[in-house]
Amino acid sequence: MKLLYPNSLKLDIKSIEGFAVTLHQYDVNAPIPEELIDAEILVTWTNSASNLKDAASRMKNIRWIQSLAAGPNDVLNAGFDTSAITVTTGSGLHDHTVAEHTLGLLLTAARRFHEMRDYQLRSEWPGHLGGPQPDRPAGSFRTLRDARVLIWGYGNIAKTLTPHLTALGARVRGVARHAGVRGGVEVADESALPQLLAETDALVMILPGSDATRHALNAERLRQLPKHAWVVNVGRGMSVDEDALVAALEKGEIGGAALDVFETEPLPSSSPLWKAPNLFVSPHGAGGRPQGSEALIAENLRRFLAGQPLNNVISIKGKL
Amino acid sequence: MKLLYPNSLKLDIKSIEGFAVTLHQYDVNAPIPEELIDAEILVTWTNSASNLKDAASRMKNIRWIQSLAAGPNDVLNAGFDTSAITVTTGSGLHDHTVAEHTLGLLLTAARRFHEMRDYQLRSEWPGHLGGPQPDRPAGSFRTLRDARVLIWGYGNIAKTLTPHLTALGARVRGVARHAGVRGGVEVADESALPQLLAETDALVMILPGSDATRHALNAERLRQLPKHAWVVNVGRGMSVDEDALVAALEKGEIGGAALDVFETEPLPSSSPLWKAPNLFVSPHGAGGRPQGSEALIAENLRRFLAGQPLNNVISIKGKL
Repeated sequence: MKLLYPNSLKLDIKSIEGFAVTLHQYDVNAPIPEELIDAEILVTWTNSASNLKDAASRMKNIRWIQSLAAGPNDVLNAGFDTSAITVTTGSGLHDHTVAEHTLGLLLTAARRFHEMRDYQLRSEWPGHLGGPQPDRPAGSFRTLRDARVLIWGYGNIAKTLTPHLTALGARVRGVARHAGVRGGVEVADESALPQLLAETDALVMILPGSDATRHALNAERLRQLPKHAWVVNVGRGMSVDEDALVAALEKGEIGGAALDVFETEPLPSSSPLWKAPNLFVSPHGAGGRPQGSEALIAENLRRFLAGQPLNNVISIKGKL
Repeated sequence: MKLLYPNSLKLDIKSIEGFAVTLHQYDVNAPIPEELIDAEILVTWTNSASNLKDAASRMKNIRWIQSLAAGPNDVLNAGFDTSAITVTTGSGLHDHTVAEHTLGLLLTAARRFHEMRDYQLRSEWPGHLGGPQPDRPAGSFRTLRDARVLIWGYGNIAKTLTPHLTALGARVRGVARHAGVRGGVEVADESALPQLLAETDALVMILPGSDATRHALNAERLRQLPKHAWVVNVGRGMSVDEDALVAALEKGEIGGAALDVFETEPLPSSSPLWKAPNLFVSPHGAGGRPQGSEALIAENLRRFLAGQPLNNVISIKGKL
């Protein structure tokens, strides 16, 4: 049995040796070589669309695809017969790095680092951002201490992020499809949003991309936020109505926004987001560094060979 | 007995009532009124130089000055008879806010938020900072995970900062006048600097201002850092030789610098720091928000009335 692993990241292959499987590296930007085309297992990371399309048409024995991406839309759109092939995701491999980036965006927003940079480029001292400051002024997001942070899309990334926020003194609540208490954090369902948004200093969006999440943060939701509240989006761009966001920023209906994801990426130079007031643009840089891939591959390989259910199996419409 | 408290910040005065002392607010930008001039205790925060100079000449009964600043140079330079007056500092009141700002500067450096902002201002997508990235590449400071952070000036702010860094996966070591292990962190004395600097991805400077710390980070020390290392200074500007830093940045001898403090503040528009490559300017905004002032005042007031040694007594040359 053959497992093909990608040349697009550094993997400690030794740590997945010892199974009754041969391991072969392949080029994610070229067609799979003839001698590997009978492989049963394909690990993917940043494969070119043509590589995946070619693999979908030529790899007749494939039974399992392990993507290292959190949302492997590339694999799902390549034409593989997903009724016969199990697709597993890299969910979990990006939690730490996305959490770190999100924390950085929240601190950038609170401490106004982007505004400091604007002054620096003009060789001007932003005196209003230094020297004596009011401590935790009401109606303002200037520190995580005592800040009310709402995480919409309370999954694994949120669980990784939360302890960093609470350690800095933030009060964290979550919103998810199902209400409950997760790791000590009160998570409500979306029916509670009007009330929760009104009690939020910083809203962190970590929603997946789907028809259900399209423009989840729309004009009406934006109006429910306090005027000083910041929005940080590290989920998917489609979950925010960008036109409504620009309007809210221009009218001063919210405090600001730090976005790592956009409806169209790269963000077109014509987008009004670039120049919207109090908006910070990060180029989808939160994730993109799978961490712990080998352990995930090894555990799923063990399960695959034993005929047991795999971890991170993607739910595909019409298929469990 | 009279205690005068400043009008320059919001204090919960109720929480320091109940002592055999009367409490009187005063204006930090005006002369002390005649009816308060016999006060024994003065609490200061961002007082004007003329207010302090006037107080030093007219307040003949003063026995104790509680500054809420970490380093009350303003009080020490005002002409008070410090051989007869006890001066106590606000050391500890700024630990949290300085730690938060420092964490933000470290994440700005690692995630290149300042560079993202430069691109944004040109409506350009910084593609090299987004999408798939190498995970913790050697010879680079791109994440706190596994980053080697050296804190030079390992005191209370460092102790507050360290858990946030280690929670993100950083490996923290310290340098202080006396070697030892503090809160699980290995702290060396300055003789170890050549070796420690060579093993540093991010150097955090939290040195106080004094003759002994002037230009502590000089050309020679900068050369001991790896080429990718970042310098973050939140202590005092005088501890960094700014000319040597600009030279090191221009020659690419270090990775970058994020400075919150400067030899001259506000930073003059003629300073080469504004335009130095890979340098981020923050306008002395880390602290400036004393937190927990009332508890410090109350405890020191209790000790003062009981004739016991106060907390945070400043060491003045020629005086214990």
